[in-house]
Amino acid sequence: MKMLLIGLIVLGFSSLVSAKIMETPFLPLPSKAPAPKDNPTTKDKVELGKQLYFDPRLSLDGTVSCNSCHNVMSNGTDNRAFSAGIKGQLGGRSAPTVWNSGFHSVQFWDGRAPSLEAQAKGPLTNSIEMGMPSHQAVIDRIQKIPGYVSQFEKVFGKGGMNIDNLAKAIAAYERTLLTPDSPMDRYLRGNESALSAQAKRGLKTVMEVGCVACHTGVNYNGANLEPGVGSYQKFPTFTENEFVKKYDFMKDKGRAEVTKDESDAHFWRVPTWRNVALTAPYFHNGAVKTLPEAVRVMAKTQLNKDLTDTQVADIVEFLKSLTGKFPPQALPRLPESETFSSLE
Amino acid sequence: MKMLLIGLIVLGFSSLVSAKIMETPFLPLPSKAPAPKDNPTTKDKVELGKQLYFDPRLSLDGTVSCNSCHNVMSNGTDNRAFSAGIKGQLGGRSAPTVWNSGFHSVQFWDGRAPSLEAQAKGPLTNSIEMGMPSHQAVIDRIQKIPGYVSQFEKVFGKGGMNIDNLAKAIAAYERTLLTPDSPMDRYLRGNESALSAQAKRGLKTVMEVGCVACHTGVNYNGANLEPGVGSYQKFPTFTENEFVKKYDFMKDKGRAEVTKDESDAHFWRVPTWRNVALTAPYFHNGAVKTLPEAVRVMAKTQLNKDLTDTQVADIVEFLKSLTGKFPPQALPRLPESETFSSLE
Repeated sequence: MKMLLIGLIVLGFSSLVSAKIMETPFLPLPSKAPAPKDNPTTKDKVELGKQLYFDPRLSLDGTVSCNSCHNVMSNGTDNRAFSAGIKGQLGGRSAPTVWNSGFHSVQFWDGRAPSLEAQAKGPLTNSIEMGMPSHQAVIDRIQKIPGYVSQFEKVFGKGGMNIDNLAKAIAAYERTLLTPDSPMDRYLRGNESALSAQAKRGLKTVMEVGCVACHTGVNYNGANLEPGVGSYQKFPTFTENEFVKKYDFMKDKGRAEVTKDESDAHFWRVPTWRNVALTAPYFHNGAVKTLPEAVRVMAKTQLNKDLTDTQVADIVEFLKSLTGKFPPQALPRLPESETFSSLE
Repeated sequence: MKMLLIGLIVLGFSSLVSAKIMETPFLPLPSKAPAPKDNPTTKDKVELGKQLYFDPRLSLDGTVSCNSCHNVMSNGTDNRAFSAGIKGQLGGRSAPTVWNSGFHSVQFWDGRAPSLEAQAKGPLTNSIEMGMPSHQAVIDRIQKIPGYVSQFEKVFGKGGMNIDNLAKAIAAYERTLLTPDSPMDRYLRGNESALSAQAKRGLKTVMEVGCVACHTGVNYNGANLEPGVGSYQKFPTFTENEFVKKYDFMKDKGRAEVTKDESDAHFWRVPTWRNVALTAPYFHNGAVKTLPEAVRVMAKTQLNKDLTDTQVADIVEFLKSLTGKFPPQALPRLPESETFSSLE
């Protein structure tokens, strides 16, 4: 009886607290990322995918793995403007973080991959990134590694070693890369004191000035869309300002480079805000090095607004409260090959 | 009383078993690697060293870490003849495994580093490997990473961020990379059944044919020598055989390349046998891809003996019993920098 009373009091108190929580278009991070029906997340598949993710033998000269650019140890990115592939060659866009990417409805800056599975296949045969001559060449190589042969058979059945299953395994691993429990997640779940006063002012500001026209939902990058349906926005929308020229934002046409449709020029997938304080530099070309400057750029290019220094500082404080907890992970052990032979 | 009796019976039984253990010049792996007096192994230092070990920002273009070639996930090596540094450039020797390297009295194939601390400094400024222009440039770069600044201060005190302490931290981490409990370790500790009958024949053979003239001790690479004192042997000793030409063993003069003394030509540090079944390819130039062939080569070039196929198979089985247990490790989290700037 006493326990019940205490329970009711606690319940009453927490609903009082909840009453102070602002109504926002944001959602806390679920405990699991949704998986496609044909690729359920299983323990063995995740372990296989993790090994593949960290394995540089998937690249032409054996030096670049998925993890090289989307470095799980470095907040899922490489903190570079342009990532380096084989032979130190630089790509043309900044690597998005892999953490929480299981909640994006499309992948890549231009949204050209409708799923993590589709994304995983891209860099393998990109001549600047992993440089393999074909997906078959990837399979030919890992087929020589007994530890992969046995795991593919275990996870996908006999004859299951093919590029689609390789991508499925990598995607299954990536779906487990979640950073829950940011201050904002705790706030959204009813802990009013999880945000500082300044962060709350920042939260109010992002809603008032209009950032939330695009940055909404679980990943702060659009409403909960079906897999494969992207939330695209034009960037920059307002081009007559100092930033556009300074940071060379008009050079890359974004989605139009994929669709070849001029009406898609400078459209981009809305990027996530989760862990944004840890994933500098900013924008598709990594041209902006600091978060305050990124906030100023966005307000000007997307909303044609000049924020005050206080507004910027408040928003930055709010964005910092979107840094989640990076769960400890075990290092994978990569299955051994007798001798690595480069394809070069 | 009953317990005591059982205890005595068990003790009696295990000493009976011990009686069957062959007398060998090998020692089981101790639970800790010896650390120099001025670099005790502490938890915070090991954690800092681990981050540095995995951090590609320590290389000129931010693509190569210690782990790139001495891949902890791949048995401490890269299974390549020649390792790849920045821009995919290939070095001239095969990367030795980092696992159990805390038990080598000198480091590198030619023993030119008297300690893990000294070794750690080498690749940083090697133009083919990590390519930094100077050790100061390494420090300048990590000084911009607040997470390193605070950890160096915590571990080494104020003003403690310098190249010697960086090397100390990396060495401290490397000393923790031990693979205990191989079948042979269990055998040496008295478990007679830890080795198969074939492995025991192999063990007998390596003692009878003379491999143990050099391969002895904890790491099967020489008696327990003082740090800095190497166990060097000429390889190849017998040069009039098919292998020497086929595998181009005379090209690299080994220790003479360091000492500039012709009498050191073709002298090398005796390599470890621990985990040798997992660290193909073999020899300083990685020219031999399989363990049976490596065994044949050694018998011929060092002992001028032609082993029978059975002898080779037995020795290989014995060498496989030197594969230890790779303890699970947590992935480090690398401290964030705002934006990585290449020094190029």
